[in-house]
Amino acid sequence: MTVEIKKIGVFTSGGDSPGMNAAIRSVVRTCAYMKIDCMGIYRGYQGMIEGDFKPMDARSVNNIINKGGTILKSARSLEFQTKEGRKKAYDQLQSAGIDGLVVIGGDGSFTGALIFHKEYNVPIIGIPGTIDNDIFGTTYTLGFDTALNTVVEVIDKIRDTASSHNRLFFVEVMGRDVGHIALNAGVGAGAEEILIPEENLGLERLLESLKRSKASGKSSSIVVVAEGDKTGKNVFELKEYVEEHLPIYDCRVSVLGHMQRGGSPSCFDRVLASRMGVKAVEALLEGKSSLMVGIQDNKITLTPISKAIKGHTKIDKELMRVSDIMTV
Amino acid sequence: MTVEIKKIGVFTSGGDSPGMNAAIRSVVRTCAYMKIDCMGIYRGYQGMIEGDFKPMDARSVNNIINKGGTILKSARSLEFQTKEGRKKAYDQLQSAGIDGLVVIGGDGSFTGALIFHKEYNVPIIGIPGTIDNDIFGTTYTLGFDTALNTVVEVIDKIRDTASSHNRLFFVEVMGRDVGHIALNAGVGAGAEEILIPEENLGLERLLESLKRSKASGKSSSIVVVAEGDKTGKNVFELKEYVEEHLPIYDCRVSVLGHMQRGGSPSCFDRVLASRMGVKAVEALLEGKSSLMVGIQDNKITLTPISKAIKGHTKIDKELMRVSDIMTV
Amino acid sequence: MTVEIKKIGVFTSGGDSPGMNAAIRSVVRTCAYMKIDCMGIYRGYQGMIEGDFKPMDARSVNNIINKGGTILKSARSLEFQTKEGRKKAYDQLQSAGIDGLVVIGGDGSFTGALIFHKEYNVPIIGIPGTIDNDIFGTTYTLGFDTALNTVVEVIDKIRDTASSHNRLFFVEVMGRDVGHIALNAGVGAGAEEILIPEENLGLERLLESLKRSKASGKSSSIVVVAEGDKTGKNVFELKEYVEEHLPIYDCRVSVLGHMQRGGSPSCFDRVLASRMGVKAVEALLEGKSSLMVGIQDNKITLTPISKAIKGHTKIDKELMRVSDIMTV
Amino acid sequence: MTVEIKKIGVFTSGGDSPGMNAAIRSVVRTCAYMKIDCMGIYRGYQGMIEGDFKPMDARSVNNIINKGGTILKSARSLEFQTKEGRKKAYDQLQSAGIDGLVVIGGDGSFTGALIFHKEYNVPIIGIPGTIDNDIFGTTYTLGFDTALNTVVEVIDKIRDTASSHNRLFFVEVMGRDVGHIALNAGVGAGAEEILIPEENLGLERLLESLKRSKASGKSSSIVVVAEGDKTGKNVFELKEYVEEHLPIYDCRVSVLGHMQRGGSPSCFDRVLASRMGVKAVEALLEGKSSLMVGIQDNKITLTPISKAIKGHTKIDKELMRVSDIMTV
Repeated sequence: MTVEIKKIGVFTSGGDSPGMNAAIRSVVRTCAYMKIDCMGIYRGYQGMIEGDFKPMDARSVNNIINKGGTILKSARSLEFQTKEGRKKAYDQLQSAGIDGLVVIGGDGSFTGALIFHKEYNVPIIGIPGTIDNDIFGTTYTLGFDTALNTVVEVIDKIRDTASSHNRLFFVEVMGRDVGHIALNAGVGAGAEEILIPEENLGLERLLESLKRSKASGKSSSIVVVAEGDKTGKNVFELKEYVEEHLPIYDCRVSVLGHMQRGGSPSCFDRVLASRMGVKAVEALLEGKSSLMVGIQDNKITLTPISKAIKGHTKIDKELMRVSDIMTV
Repeated sequence: MTVEIKKIGVFTSGGDSPGMNAAIRSVVRTCAYMKIDCMGIYRGYQGMIEGDFKPMDARSVNNIINKGGTILKSARSLEFQTKEGRKKAYDQLQSAGIDGLVVIGGDGSFTGALIFHKEYNVPIIGIPGTIDNDIFGTTYTLGFDTALNTVVEVIDKIRDTASSHNRLFFVEVMGRDVGHIALNAGVGAGAEEILIPEENLGLERLLESLKRSKASGKSSSIVVVAEGDKTGKNVFELKEYVEEHLPIYDCRVSVLGHMQRGGSPSCFDRVLASRMGVKAVEALLEGKSSLMVGIQDNKITLTPISKAIKGHTKIDKELMRVSDIMTV
Repeated sequence: MTVEIKKIGVFTSGGDSPGMNAAIRSVVRTCAYMKIDCMGIYRGYQGMIEGDFKPMDARSVNNIINKGGTILKSARSLEFQTKEGRKKAYDQLQSAGIDGLVVIGGDGSFTGALIFHKEYNVPIIGIPGTIDNDIFGTTYTLGFDTALNTVVEVIDKIRDTASSHNRLFFVEVMGRDVGHIALNAGVGAGAEEILIPEENLGLERLLESLKRSKASGKSSSIVVVAEGDKTGKNVFELKEYVEEHLPIYDCRVSVLGHMQRGGSPSCFDRVLASRMGVKAVEALLEGKSSLMVGIQDNKITLTPISKAIKGHTKIDKELMRVSDIMTV
Repeated sequence: MTVEIKKIGVFTSGGDSPGMNAAIRSVVRTCAYMKIDCMGIYRGYQGMIEGDFKPMDARSVNNIINKGGTILKSARSLEFQTKEGRKKAYDQLQSAGIDGLVVIGGDGSFTGALIFHKEYNVPIIGIPGTIDNDIFGTTYTLGFDTALNTVVEVIDKIRDTASSHNRLFFVEVMGRDVGHIALNAGVGAGAEEILIPEENLGLERLLESLKRSKASGKSSSIVVVAEGDKTGKNVFELKEYVEEHLPIYDCRVSVLGHMQRGGSPSCFDRVLASRMGVKAVEALLEGKSSLMVGIQDNKITLTPISKAIKGHTKIDKELMRVSDIMTV
């Protein structure tokens, strides 16, 4: 199946995450180092369909390693979900001479990549770029570490005002299906309670925990709530529920939202992106395809994309226990 | 009217703001320097009523200059709005030997101070601590500068993701009655449009401006909205309105909320707090009362509290014009 | 003397400072708003001599308001100090049709501007861009506020390790001729002692102050030293002197250096830059020249450059006293 | 060998690192959760000798998870290196009823722990707290991640001014014996060249690399130098050497120094500290001793301290190659 790769296309797809630019830079520079051509594909699969390409050399990625977002932009493409759309995309790649792809994105982007590869046999390697850290085959996804720092820095600020006023804050963080951000940032921010999609501890337990916390002498508390928590209540309803059942607290809500996706990447994410980009290009040059670059035990690894998208990484039971102990 | 001051009580009242701790530190250390006693009063007027006092010396304020919030806590006190409450407060001050007060807070706190002074003739000096910058007699209130930095840093992050996805973001910032945060942070963050309580430019203009911006080649935009904007729509309704009338944009909302009150104070706020604390104690020692410390033309000044609370500082027309020009 | 201005050249000169990009953006966009042409001149006066120009429109300054450094680069030009060099520069401006200049820089840059204007009568307006805050006619120079935040954030970190090990740190900050950074950041960081070029308090006083501090129960201390302090010792010699004469302290040195010039500008500097850029263009269009834009009492003002460069702004005696009191 | 543990002493030793406070908090709260006593030992082994102890409960570690430094202080102890000193320490532990120890520190601290355990059989568990990341048996030491972020943030600022002036900066970072900070932060900051103790690439290669970089169109460059680099020249001599042999660059030096040890810990370090503290207490309660808690493949592990201190972790060859490729 090995084809000789002469020109690699790189693109970002799905929700953006900090470190995507560092990964683009790494792919582009590795191509330059290996003396093969590199083409930036704008706006993900949609740009591929439209032939929105631009040649990139080592200098075109100067000064982006520390920038949030993605210079190649990202977009949803309904058209790529159709056979016609994918045909157009393939034709564009053909006429541009692109014979290998690196996709930086999450599981939705990877699913598209698999289908495309099956239909047109264009070699494609994935780099997991998402703040959610929800992909099999890698301990960390690109952007997760930065998002955690963003969240704890904001909660640190919220705690200032919470403890000045003896308030209870409900802080909603990203995570519709997985609670990795909530759990890690919750532990990092010293949250009293953490509500995640993976486990419904029940509203009773929340009240108990908050009562105990107040009794123990804590003057203020933070409850971190993942978007997809399973209590059946959103963060505003949770606040009302607690105010009603536990009138000892003056409650407030803060929804962190999209700021979690942005910001200059942490050193960890920059280094990870640099390592992953090199590996992605190398894999293509070795004739591989349909694999995702990951990091496991601090080594850069390759995992079949088909496995990577099969399910979510599980929440860490040990860390949930640590969270419990910390709120003693 | 001069009484010899031997013991000063200091407290924070109303919404907290970054720099309050630096101001407390300054009051406490100036007392130590002047060799008079200082008493920390916890939880504002409510703590005064309850006699929640603690003697403070130079070392009790170590390592707080860079901390957000207020170590003396803050609280609303309904009881202090009654004659009985104020009587209790006075009795507590008497029995603790406190013969002068420094109140760090906003206009609500100052109003209480004036009434209390009229009734009991306890000398009282105010330090304007609020992120809203809405007090007459000072160009800057404590915490305003820090809040602006917090807001622009968050909007910088939001812009990363906005421009990656060609989105329009509506960002709500604090400011129920005044638009100083919105206007300054909006200009600082390069916002496309800024909606403030002081001026209703109308929804038509907003649409025009966004249309023009898109046409000019901008791929993403930020609209900063003060809580109290006068369009008659809240930030979520604004988003819906724009999506409906201007379907060229993919819109999102972000409500920054209480994080704006927290965080380590900027150097500006720390220096301002240090200067104001010295002046407040000096004013008391000079037999003055019912004055607010301010900064005007980079000089520390004193203004009658009665004038300070009379109305809001006006929005800067020149800065509104600058904002207009910047979004060309 | 009024000439009709059709094309404005903008450049940065001397040491860079945070906010220069925001000022460039403001000048460029104000030109666009006023419908006159704008030309970016690269590398200061040297680029002017070499005709290193590039037309700029409103979109060429997208996404730079929050960037440190200067996209127009800066450089020293020995050639511009010669008559021949300035002749070349004038010829380049002529052939590019540039009939007005905005120079963003410090007093060296302004001196060059004055000479050039005298010789060739090209209208020129200055914007004070330097972290040193040493220019008459403006309370704040562009970049000063950001530099202060950088310094206090770093000293906050140094204090963590200082107080963990009960150490005394000597921290050198920028300021060869003026102590504004040292004094303000020293007060903001809670420094025990601040050594500035303007006043030589003597080594005896330093020892006394440190002895008193130790005796008062402080476990660690920070001494902020401006580059140009007048003790006759550099920061390393100071450390040795104190170690020798006051063996109660374990001492360390930290020289902050060039990081003070970089970084994303604070909101204050971004807003200031935006306001100054508008005023600079307006002044040119009103036929003015040889003036510097400044901010005084929160209003944007114009001062003859000849006055601005005449001497340094004086150190604030009141703030020195505040510093003394704070270290009680 | 199992003894029933009733009271655990916790202390920090050696150079401080961000996350130490979070680890103290975790040890203290885990003790509270397990319903055993906990005693804080101040100033490391020296405080142990002097009996500088303080009982700690869950509330005594409120609000420290996000603080740099160590509330228990740290110090070198020459006395503990003597038999007499260790005897005193043991007697102090005995009389305080401390029957288990958690030491948070680096390899020096661990060596002391091993000797002490051999002599007095007090169970002791280590938590690797050092920014150097130079300890076997853990992929990450506490504080390493935070230090990397500090370094890249500072280099980002330095790059602003470097690229404004087309300069070459030599930035010295910590690392006398190991180059982990230099290599990771160098890759993260996009450094042109990275000089580490583990490998002497020679000055010729440095010149070649810088020449190539200039030729490739880069206008500015950063060289990251670990303290213990093997070129035989310190960072100032390096600068002079390059200026002499490669006069195309205007060079500057920045020595980052102790700021690298301080600062609020990253989320990663806070979570790691929390997990490690739990494991340390659990290990003691299970009758274990002389083990170090580590993290490997994202799991919390235990390694004999004797192995942990045997040698340095090796520099990552793959990452060095990534660094090479990135500077194409």
